Amino acid sequence: MIITVRDESTEEERQEVVALLQSYQYAPTAVRTQERTYFVAIGSADIDIREVGHLSAVADVHRVSDVFKLVSRKWKATPTVIQFDEDTCIEEGGLTLIGGPCSVEDEDQIRRVAQHLKEQGVGLMRGGAFKPRTSPYSFRGHGLEGLKMFHTIAHEYGLRIVSEVVAASHIEAMYDTIDVFQVGARNSQNFELLRELGNVDKPVLLKRGMSGTIDELLQSAEYIFSHGNEQLVLCERGIRTFETATRNTLDLNAIPVLKEKSHLPVIVDPSHGIGVRRWVEPMALAGIMAGADGVIFEVHHTPEQAASDAQQTLNFEESASLIRKSRAVFDARCQL
Amino acid sequence: MIITVRDESTEEERQEVVALLQSYQYAPTAVRTQERTYFVAIGSADIDIREVGHLSAVADVHRVSDVFKLVSRKWKATPTVIQFDEDTCIEEGGLTLIGGPCSVEDEDQIRRVAQHLKEQGVGLMRGGAFKPRTSPYSFRGHGLEGLKMFHTIAHEYGLRIVSEVVAASHIEAMYDTIDVFQVGARNSQNFELLRELGNVDKPVLLKRGMSGTIDELLQSAEYIFSHGNEQLVLCERGIRTFETATRNTLDLNAIPVLKEKSHLPVIVDPSHGIGVRRWVEPMALAGIMAGADGVIFEVHHTPEQAASDAQQTLNFEESASLIRKSRAVFDARCQL
Amino acid sequence: MIITVRDESTEEERQEVVALLQSYQYAPTAVRTQERTYFVAIGSADIDIREVGHLSAVADVHRVSDVFKLVSRKWKATPTVIQFDEDTCIEEGGLTLIGGPCSVEDEDQIRRVAQHLKEQGVGLMRGGAFKPRTSPYSFRGHGLEGLKMFHTIAHEYGLRIVSEVVAASHIEAMYDTIDVFQVGARNSQNFELLRELGNVDKPVLLKRGMSGTIDELLQSAEYIFSHGNEQLVLCERGIRTFETATRNTLDLNAIPVLKEKSHLPVIVDPSHGIGVRRWVEPMALAGIMAGADGVIFEVHHTPEQAASDAQQTLNFEESASLIRKSRAVFDARCQL
Amino acid sequence: MIITVRDESTEEERQEVVALLQSYQYAPTAVRTQERTYFVAIGSADIDIREVGHLSAVADVHRVSDVFKLVSRKWKATPTVIQFDEDTCIEEGGLTLIGGPCSVEDEDQIRRVAQHLKEQGVGLMRGGAFKPRTSPYSFRGHGLEGLKMFHTIAHEYGLRIVSEVVAASHIEAMYDTIDVFQVGARNSQNFELLRELGNVDKPVLLKRGMSGTIDELLQSAEYIFSHGNEQLVLCERGIRTFETATRNTLDLNAIPVLKEKSHLPVIVDPSHGIGVRRWVEPMALAGIMAGADGVIFEVHHTPEQAASDAQQTLNFEESASLIRKSRAVFDARCQL
Repeated sequence: MIITVRDESTEEERQEVVALLQSYQYAPTAVRTQERTYFVAIGSADIDIREVGHLSAVADVHRVSDVFKLVSRKWKATPTVIQFDEDTCIEEGGLTLIGGPCSVEDEDQIRRVAQHLKEQGVGLMRGGAFKPRTSPYSFRGHGLEGLKMFHTIAHEYGLRIVSEVVAASHIEAMYDTIDVFQVGARNSQNFELLRELGNVDKPVLLKRGMSGTIDELLQSAEYIFSHGNEQLVLCERGIRTFETATRNTLDLNAIPVLKEKSHLPVIVDPSHGIGVRRWVEPMALAGIMAGADGVIFEVHHTPEQAASDAQQTLNFEESASLIRKSRAVFDARCQL
Repeated sequence: MIITVRDESTEEERQEVVALLQSYQYAPTAVRTQERTYFVAIGSADIDIREVGHLSAVADVHRVSDVFKLVSRKWKATPTVIQFDEDTCIEEGGLTLIGGPCSVEDEDQIRRVAQHLKEQGVGLMRGGAFKPRTSPYSFRGHGLEGLKMFHTIAHEYGLRIVSEVVAASHIEAMYDTIDVFQVGARNSQNFELLRELGNVDKPVLLKRGMSGTIDELLQSAEYIFSHGNEQLVLCERGIRTFETATRNTLDLNAIPVLKEKSHLPVIVDPSHGIGVRRWVEPMALAGIMAGADGVIFEVHHTPEQAASDAQQTLNFEESASLIRKSRAVFDARCQL
Repeated sequence: MIITVRDESTEEERQEVVALLQSYQYAPTAVRTQERTYFVAIGSADIDIREVGHLSAVADVHRVSDVFKLVSRKWKATPTVIQFDEDTCIEEGGLTLIGGPCSVEDEDQIRRVAQHLKEQGVGLMRGGAFKPRTSPYSFRGHGLEGLKMFHTIAHEYGLRIVSEVVAASHIEAMYDTIDVFQVGARNSQNFELLRELGNVDKPVLLKRGMSGTIDELLQSAEYIFSHGNEQLVLCERGIRTFETATRNTLDLNAIPVLKEKSHLPVIVDPSHGIGVRRWVEPMALAGIMAGADGVIFEVHHTPEQAASDAQQTLNFEESASLIRKSRAVFDARCQL
Repeated sequence: MIITVRDESTEEERQEVVALLQSYQYAPTAVRTQERTYFVAIGSADIDIREVGHLSAVADVHRVSDVFKLVSRKWKATPTVIQFDEDTCIEEGGLTLIGGPCSVEDEDQIRRVAQHLKEQGVGLMRGGAFKPRTSPYSFRGHGLEGLKMFHTIAHEYGLRIVSEVVAASHIEAMYDTIDVFQVGARNSQNFELLRELGNVDKPVLLKRGMSGTIDELLQSAEYIFSHGNEQLVLCERGIRTFETATRNTLDLNAIPVLKEKSHLPVIVDPSHGIGVRRWVEPMALAGIMAGADGVIFEVHHTPEQAASDAQQTLNFEESASLIRKSRAVFDARCQL
């Protein structure tokens, strides 16, 4: 059960709500986001929700049978919109493109890619400064210095940046030089990190785990929301299966399922999903046609020399094609 | 190595080819299809293919490094087209829709669905008369009698039919009352069945196994082709993964991969793939945008009362929507 | 519901049972095996089984809530024993070893391996004459001639043979020269084959499919049983997962689960399961300790030169070690 | 390449090693553990290792072709032993049992379980104070206070404790009240956490990720080792597959593979692996027979009332049986 609290209600009135819930053996969690205050109450007793609705602190009350609550569409019918500025947003029902290199390498690289994206009318740029790498001996990114440089240059070009955060302890230091915190597949159930991102007033882009179910992704999003941050974007990036012809199995089935279950925007990452450069474009277009609200993809001025993920990174020509076609496919989808 | 034999060559000239190949320790397989004669030669010796090409029986010769040979695009660049009549075909690069119920039930059902498909301009109808069922106590279809009825009525409406064959011993009896033999996921590596279908001069629609890799699907197709039948259609229908929110995981990644590797048409089965009625349409459209040459889907006049697969079967309104939008998406794809 | 019919009951008395079941909307299937006659009745009505039990044709009656019925332990508490002769059997609770090459190659090979097995006190020998192969260009075994030779020589050494059947149409021709029909992983849901094996009065060893669930394996066994053949052995041989360090993932979890759910013997195939020669022995021993009633493994006098599966085939020394240790582990298990 | 540095070598001598490696384009990483100093050098040039071996700072030098280095058995043939006191250790080739509840609940619970373990001669106790939970509304453990209580009471009974750490920022606070840090499946690739655990002089028990490959597990262990901590234990705890009859698929294949590839001890967690109480024992015994160096399992005085994982937790009788049989199976294994 989700109870939206009236902003002007007093602490005393709110305690009435808690007391009533507890009298029915419901465990209420108070959630204070940048936007509202809610109680999420978990319990199994048969309770007449009108009794809750009558309390003076209560703006509205909804039953949500899903295991996730605040991210469920059963509660919030209006789509979530994350507005960066007049021109740039991520919104349920829209099309947001996010391009950029796997890793932040140097100023020249960032300038070239940023220039390319600006020319193509893309407003968000991705790039990793903290890279989670399977081997401890691999390049792990340029860290905070790299992120600062990335942020400064991207903003020169009018671009917002998305970059991965790999530890709760990094959040504070990254805060001033990032626009969207990305949580990678390997940290999809790093609950300490998710919790801390609840305290941040910047958007979080949450990737599905390599063997994470759709319900687990939504519960991970619930962690962030329930700790205070409503600005969330979900991202399908491929799951592990027995198939070895592709790097991962981009699970486009997840798009309509997530869109039905949640009010959050859902984007698709075909670069990591299929993992082979020449197949990235068809999967991006298929993802949009399945209902995705955006695409995040890897682009580099010289993909063959990229510091990481060279196999799946587009060059500028391929990127321009993907961008142009993505918009055409989105238009076609809107006219169906 | 694939050697296409000149039609007018003599047996003696052909034996020259065999002798040369064997002198290099290559094992040649003679393949006689309805269209041509080939030798497929497997070996590892370093051989100058011009030496083969010079023989009088040889029309052309290609090296094919894939594990599959005759179905590989490395050998045959021209797309495969299966032409039923002037209006109806399955072709690489086109869009063919195939609708119909999971199971053939009775005349009334077949008439209603056939009428619906005809009105929608669909030329191929699916329907199972022999149903492979996990439990021996489940309804297994009306068999040959059902198939005959299905064939007669569908042809009244000008429709060609696709129906599943589950045993090599059934092929002969089914032959006169079927237009396309379908091999289901469970028989995807039933090599006896595949081999026998090589002797048939009717098209075969081959589904990917539930845990079949893309390469295995192509090798199963190679079985049929190498036993004489070039009229093949591949079908992605969902694989088994850990995810339980969907019935299977429709693997749209397979579409661009199969299209690149093979000259055969590739269609997508969103009904079995995602397995939930309201998510069939977005997956069909995504499949087309990923490059599929067609869609096979389940439709019934009263899906809730369907004898099988009720959960994933569309009603006429949903089917009409899927058909209309599939065409629009295909048009959009052609204009990209 | 499973109703065991009294042997001496009349057809009229049996029809009473059918009539009663049908009056409750139960669909009864009459099952006549070499041993008994049963009715398996599927339905959902609330029925007092004593009412059935009182009928004169009924020896006993059991409710079985599983999706499989006749292979369920809920119905038959006594373990299944397949007795070949005084010394050789496969039985629930015992330890049966089955060794032999992947493929039947020639007389010399069969003699050498048979001699080895006889010396080790093993009573059953495996060897494929009809090999299901992913590629149509691979060696597919020596067929019926190979099987005859295998059968003749093995029987000279006092060994019974297990060999794979890949098509229902082969059963009759194979019948006289085989002791146990093996159904391979790829045919685990080839229901036509399973059905025909129900008509055979020789044991069937049924392997789990590569992506077959435990319940599906039991339902495949139910196909054979319900068509008349009670002499069944289940075999865990590895499933498909994302892991690539091993050929398959031998799922030993399936052993205790199958042993609990079914009265049929369960054996384990570590050769195909893990697929790497030096890891076959530990998996065999682990399988026995998990409760397996036997082990089927590949052995060859010169594994490196084996016609197939060379990577996972043991030599005689390794085989002798596996056999000796398997017995020791079985003894240890019995004394726990 | 792994170079073990002579303890008494000077900084100048060590720089000679670095210089030589760099002259061959090798990237050397200096690793200082509690025991030794090493250089791990990654490169592809053809280098005569004797040239390195001749340098005065070098004790020995090994090529290691695996992607992991310091945890590879190619380098270190002697097994790793983690000695707690005279009676208690975890060692490659031994049998260590670790029992305890899923979650630390209260003093009474800890006392009862500790008493049980002591009576059974078990020296290590597990219990979670920080629980990673899929839902933000689930009980997440009693945290540091719970851990302190657990540590105090367990030590009263002479038991060492194993408890999960879920964030790098917790390590310091937990340090004094823990004996073995456990890294759970969800944090198996939380590289920040792994890195920080490299700085700790207490053992780390590292669980395999739910979709983690064997090579990834070893690379995660390499993270910890290469940051300074050699006291590592690997744990197989079940992977995600399509099978739903068991909670996870405990992958016993991983045991012989890990034992061959690494010198680290490998234990098995049948409780999470199969996830069903009555199947925990056979999987424990099978794991030992596959070569595991220990078993970690869940036990509670009243499993049905356990705060978490009630389905898979043993009661004292079942636990005593598992312990007794585990030792018998280990003895049997030693005598093979």
